[in-house]
Amino acid sequence: MDISRRDLFLKSAGMAACIGGGAFASDLTKTETAEERAKTFFKLYPVGRVEKKGKSVRLRIFERYADALKGLDGFSHVWVFYWLDKNDTPRKRSILQVHPRGNKKNPLTGVFACRAPVRPNLIALSLCKILSVNPAPNRGWVKSGVVHIEKIDAFDGSPVLDLKPYAPGIDSPTKGVRLPDWLKR
Amino acid sequence: MDISRRDLFLKSAGMAACIGGGAFASDLTKTETAEERAKTFFKLYPVGRVEKKGKSVRLRIFERYADALKGLDGFSHVWVFYWLDKNDTPRKRSILQVHPRGNKKNPLTGVFACRAPVRPNLIALSLCKILSVNPAPNRGWVKSGVVHIEKIDAFDGSPVLDLKPYAPGIDSPTKGVRLPDWLKR
Repeated sequence: MDISRRDLFLKSAGMAACIGGGAFASDLTKTETAEERAKTFFKLYPVGRVEKKGKSVRLRIFERYADALKGLDGFSHVWVFYWLDKNDTPRKRSILQVHPRGNKKNPLTGVFACRAPVRPNLIALSLCKILSVNPAPNRGWVKSGVVHIEKIDAFDGSPVLDLKPYAPGIDSPTKGVRLPDWLKR
Repeated sequence: MDISRRDLFLKSAGMAACIGGGAFASDLTKTETAEERAKTFFKLYPVGRVEKKGKSVRLRIFERYADALKGLDGFSHVWVFYWLDKNDTPRKRSILQVHPRGNKKNPLTGVFACRAPVRPNLIALSLCKILSVNPAPNRGWVKSGVVHIEKIDAFDGSPVLDLKPYAPGIDSPTKGVRLPDWLKR
């Protein structure tokens, strides 16, 4: 994962209103009280929405973030990070184990060992094929902010959190992949 | 990405104190004011920390979340989501374009089109090889909460947000991958 570090040299193209950071510094390696924990969180701001109309699937990136799409059209696939907002309740965020695929025959499995849409932090990750970026003619890529994708397992309106391009060198295992039996069935 | 939906049938194994949800409902497709936007965020709670000591790299999952690791030992690789907490400032979260790999010869590129560690939402994603899960002998997997991994491009102490197992069927492209020139060099 060395690309992220190597990208550290920055040249901001400016724009984008300031986005408030929300981290509270805290040493979480010690055992904290519920009160302490409640103060320790990071803030996620939606950068767009999933739009589904018929067979068309688009990521509508808000205008203030559209400049961050520059160059995405050079890639075939993108990781879409979105928020499982329909499950954002204290109860669903406290579920730690499920039967994968809703099948009781599958062993009770931790949410960190499956892709269940209930988990402490409701981040969903989908690898999507890009059909076009900012397809609006005569507008250029700036301010348009539309990524047309093949499909995504999200709801119409799901909040988009981040996009990262698919890079085989860091996003695929170099050696043998091993899976549990329930996933092979 | 159909696994996540199919996992919807839930069986909570209880435990884990309630985790406060933090979403504010808001229609972000309209243009919102800065004030409105400031209210619209989701809360991320750290579920563990990266621990680096010499060549040993571990994910220390907090005890209250350790049950979510059940079954992870059946997988060879895991996606680690962590927070780039050192960059959690309004300025760094407002950067939308960078020169990839810190090389000015590379074209100015949107942060959604590279893996820069500065972006509106500071989620980092690393695919990691699992060496062992909860290796402590005589303790079983419950309450131990340690995932020993081969390596990760994170700092010692980086907050872990989520773990998802690597599943080739949904995590690798089925057709040709296309990349921009700067990434091929």
